[in-house]
Amino acid sequence: MKRALDLAKKAQGMTSPNPMVGAVVVKDGKVVGEGYHKKAGMPHAESLAIDAAGKNARGSDLYVNLEPCCHTGRTGPCADKIIASGIKKVVAATKDPNPLMCGKSLKKLGKAGVKTSCGTCCRESRKLNEVFFKNMQKKLPFVAAKFAQSLDGKIATRLNVSQWITSLAARNKAKELRDLYDCVVVGVNTANKDNPSLNGLTKKPLKAVIDPKLAIKPSLKLIRENGKNLFILTSLKNKNKRSKLFDKATVLFAKEKNGSLDLLDLLEQLYARKVCSLFVEGGAQTLGLFFDAGLVDKVYAFIAPQIIGGKDALSAVGAGGVAKPGKINLKSMRVEMVGPDILVSGDVKRYLK
Amino acid sequence: MKRALDLAKKAQGMTSPNPMVGAVVVKDGKVVGEGYHKKAGMPHAESLAIDAAGKNARGSDLYVNLEPCCHTGRTGPCADKIIASGIKKVVAATKDPNPLMCGKSLKKLGKAGVKTSCGTCCRESRKLNEVFFKNMQKKLPFVAAKFAQSLDGKIATRLNVSQWITSLAARNKAKELRDLYDCVVVGVNTANKDNPSLNGLTKKPLKAVIDPKLAIKPSLKLIRENGKNLFILTSLKNKNKRSKLFDKATVLFAKEKNGSLDLLDLLEQLYARKVCSLFVEGGAQTLGLFFDAGLVDKVYAFIAPQIIGGKDALSAVGAGGVAKPGKINLKSMRVEMVGPDILVSGDVKRYLK
Repeated sequence: MKRALDLAKKAQGMTSPNPMVGAVVVKDGKVVGEGYHKKAGMPHAESLAIDAAGKNARGSDLYVNLEPCCHTGRTGPCADKIIASGIKKVVAATKDPNPLMCGKSLKKLGKAGVKTSCGTCCRESRKLNEVFFKNMQKKLPFVAAKFAQSLDGKIATRLNVSQWITSLAARNKAKELRDLYDCVVVGVNTANKDNPSLNGLTKKPLKAVIDPKLAIKPSLKLIRENGKNLFILTSLKNKNKRSKLFDKATVLFAKEKNGSLDLLDLLEQLYARKVCSLFVEGGAQTLGLFFDAGLVDKVYAFIAPQIIGGKDALSAVGAGGVAKPGKINLKSMRVEMVGPDILVSGDVKRYLK
Repeated sequence: MKRALDLAKKAQGMTSPNPMVGAVVVKDGKVVGEGYHKKAGMPHAESLAIDAAGKNARGSDLYVNLEPCCHTGRTGPCADKIIASGIKKVVAATKDPNPLMCGKSLKKLGKAGVKTSCGTCCRESRKLNEVFFKNMQKKLPFVAAKFAQSLDGKIATRLNVSQWITSLAARNKAKELRDLYDCVVVGVNTANKDNPSLNGLTKKPLKAVIDPKLAIKPSLKLIRENGKNLFILTSLKNKNKRSKLFDKATVLFAKEKNGSLDLLDLLEQLYARKVCSLFVEGGAQTLGLFFDAGLVDKVYAFIAPQIIGGKDALSAVGAGGVAKPGKINLKSMRVEMVGPDILVSGDVKRYLK
């Protein structure tokens, strides 16, 4: 199963909207075939592994980090192929998180006389496909929040100077993280102030700018370089405005809620467009609104070994904030050094009222 | 020398205003005597080690983490005792940092026919006695700044609720740190709001409250429990005021500078009273003023795995702050877990303009 997980991981950042899946066919204690899902539209891991095993598949065990599918999508159903191949046992790490599919394939396999087992490396498997699990269970994109601050939590000085607080190594690591997500999100003030590219290290992810009043500067790199791959997220109030922006980017219109855009509405619209995961980079107001709305799943905090100070200096997460400590807690914390900086990451446990 | 350093460390937090010193007498590759300085007024490490070695001292080597003294204080000069004992070689980790003494004893020993060497484990030795080195070189107390914040750098919520952000383990670790310093410092607002004890885990350090307008509440634990061991640091403008506080605590009067107390003036006054090290715990304004004045030597940041958010929530270091990133950088960074929280500590490299 560890091998299956390692295989799955090879396509990290490439499979959206599909999960990462690896499969290993084992016969008499030996690996006789393996495969992983490389990209949506390409063959499934199980199918590749069975093909690789050829005749050896008969009487073998199949290890796979997610319950095989039993529906016909762009590829045929894996459950049928498994049955046809003569595999005698399927070991899955987790059931399909889609409530409509969950356990269906394993049942089907069982009825056809294939032994099944589920739960090996369950935690690692869920973690690896955290985006897919969120998508299937909530029908919403997975949301990662990222910020880069001084040790005392500042993202800019009192004069609003923010370049650079963290090291080149940390900034490159942040680019690497962009590669893992479908779409990078910033607020319009950050976009206008920094004129960023928001590209990954190897990928050009989708980009989105939260821009309630259509205040984005038309000269920005984001607009010039991304065309319709840039989402401008604005208020329904602007729907009947005439703006050249409407031709230059994909503009989505959201309801307003408490004077800000209704982020849940926007997330639903993005998910309907197959945007499965967001990497929200700021600024403070944008990050704050995502946290206030209870929509963040994961946090990446880069911390530079320096003090900035200043009561008027911006800190990383603005907007409203919680009333009492202990309401937005992180679990599965990870602390690592990236060059001279510290990267703390963790998953939001749950939002408490 | 490692043994000498370990011995010295046994009295950590106890030797002020003296340094921590350990000494080991070695003859024919065997330790024949050792000792460490336990407390000001008690015998010096070298003296104890030589006594322990007895007759074996003759012809032996002495390892000590600081150049021996050659002045008569509350105890006799160690250099004379070394010469009298017949020790043939002295290995010191560093010279005495006091510019008036630096190298004097080693020279005296050399003239008397004792071989000398200096520099072994120099870095560890300086680090161990960072307080003493600062004292001798700058004639000022060593200043450590401590704060406890959420991952996004907040020390309270938008409603100014701050209890508790970090865990009990982290709060106990902070108490343990107080034991290492002579005096714990807070601002008057923090004192009035939290009514803290500010005691260590095993020690009752001196306390100081920065209180420009004499606004401290007379009912506070700090006043009731500490008597003259509480410093109230206020403005010269209050010198002729009549206040019961003047009887209940030690009140020091400082000049004002840019509308705040001149912290350098205060530090000089505290140092004149043999306060060799400060542990500044906040709040944000107090920490900010220390950083703005360029007076902080070391930083301890406790970081809790939670997000607080909010543009109106206080962040750890207030007051003015730097104009550009990269002006107050930390070195010798250390990252450790304290229960669920992260403790990042480091030394201020130097203040850049």
